Amino acid sequence: MRVEIWSDIACPWCYVGKARFDKALAAFPHRDEVEVVHRSFELDPGRAKDDVQPVITMLTRKYGMSAAQAEAGEDNLGAQAAAEGLDYRTRGRDHGSTFDMHRLLHFAKEHGRQEALLERLYRANFADKHSVFTSGDEHLVELAAAAGLDADAARAVLADPAAFADEVRADEQEAAQLGANGVPFFVLDRTYGVSGAQPAEVFTQALTQAWGERTPLRTLAQDGAGTCGPDGCEVPRQG
Amino acid sequence: MRVEIWSDIACPWCYVGKARFDKALAAFPHRDEVEVVHRSFELDPGRAKDDVQPVITMLTRKYGMSAAQAEAGEDNLGAQAAAEGLDYRTRGRDHGSTFDMHRLLHFAKEHGRQEALLERLYRANFADKHSVFTSGDEHLVELAAAAGLDADAARAVLADPAAFADEVRADEQEAAQLGANGVPFFVLDRTYGVSGAQPAEVFTQALTQAWGERTPLRTLAQDGAGTCGPDGCEVPRQG
Repeated sequence: MRVEIWSDIACPWCYVGKARFDKALAAFPHRDEVEVVHRSFELDPGRAKDDVQPVITMLTRKYGMSAAQAEAGEDNLGAQAAAEGLDYRTRGRDHGSTFDMHRLLHFAKEHGRQEALLERLYRANFADKHSVFTSGDEHLVELAAAAGLDADAARAVLADPAAFADEVRADEQEAAQLGANGVPFFVLDRTYGVSGAQPAEVFTQALTQAWGERTPLRTLAQDGAGTCGPDGCEVPRQG
Repeated sequence: MRVEIWSDIACPWCYVGKARFDKALAAFPHRDEVEVVHRSFELDPGRAKDDVQPVITMLTRKYGMSAAQAEAGEDNLGAQAAAEGLDYRTRGRDHGSTFDMHRLLHFAKEHGRQEALLERLYRANFADKHSVFTSGDEHLVELAAAAGLDADAARAVLADPAAFADEVRADEQEAAQLGANGVPFFVLDRTYGVSGAQPAEVFTQALTQAWGERTPLRTLAQDGAGTCGPDGCEVPRQG
């Protein structure tokens, strides 16, 4: 079974929701047969790389919240994160473009290090003191190296704005095709969709349901074509 | 859409069938949205690494064919391969264990080089003069390097018989669960199975049918959980 998770590094509910999903997956009896793939979704796709703001400022300017409302929202997220055992800085975080981080996650996927990098990016953005948006590409290179990637190769990906850019956009187009307007968005075997940072119990239910409803393959055109098996290769009749 | 292909390097119909599938895929309008994954299947899973025989000898001893029958089978495969533009040595090939090659293909998958390595392994076994079974691990290391993998890392995988062994066996168990007794075996979105080296037209039909029948997602528990979207993060009501 395959679970695809659309998310953004700048999305606090993605950070919390992933911890809840991971808890459900760790307890799922068929967890070794579940493949998890991370897909890109930018909350703020047009944002320039050098356009960085404090989160509270962004919330008040972009969404018209009062500072008290914005801070209450962050406090709630901090409490939700803490309940999952996650660190969360409720004050002083930045908001900015995550496009380069998504490109780097696609590079990491090619090397089997996507999950390791995503975890480090989340932690860097939500828990660490240094802003992941203003600390420069070398900070991202360090995170990539800590996730097991080659530092020079990661640096080259960051330096080339076209590298893995198509992969990021393809993921985003696919999210739109699947009807995802927000993240996190979980897709199980392209059959079930789960929207939002649901409680672990909901993910358990979705995993169980999707697993139970795996349908037997419908086999097309089985006869007459060449196959090899334990008893040798069958040669189909000609003409 | 995802297509998984179970095959063995020692399986001539897999070599021919893959060329036919590739032809269909190249002409498929949604080819950029098709992900191809190669899965392991050994025709001769118990075979020791040093147990190598000429193919014709193996066919006569293991399957009780006459030498003339075995040679006619190879001639037919050579003609089928030639029709797909593939080189095929009908005389003088060896048969042996492919376990290490499958382990190497799983290593290549982690680095996004599985397709490139598979192509080189097929060519080495079916078209090249040197036997891929008796030319030693360094020959496999060269093929891995030619496919874009790090030679030292590939050498380390080959030197450790446990490396990626579980991945090979997991693929083989999954093939059995899906009802595949022979290869090549193509699985489209875990919905359609296509057995054998079918004509390209059959693969075109399968791709078209599986694409057309992609079902809309059923969404579970959409309300009440935290999500972030282009309009900010929604905070679910507490209690």
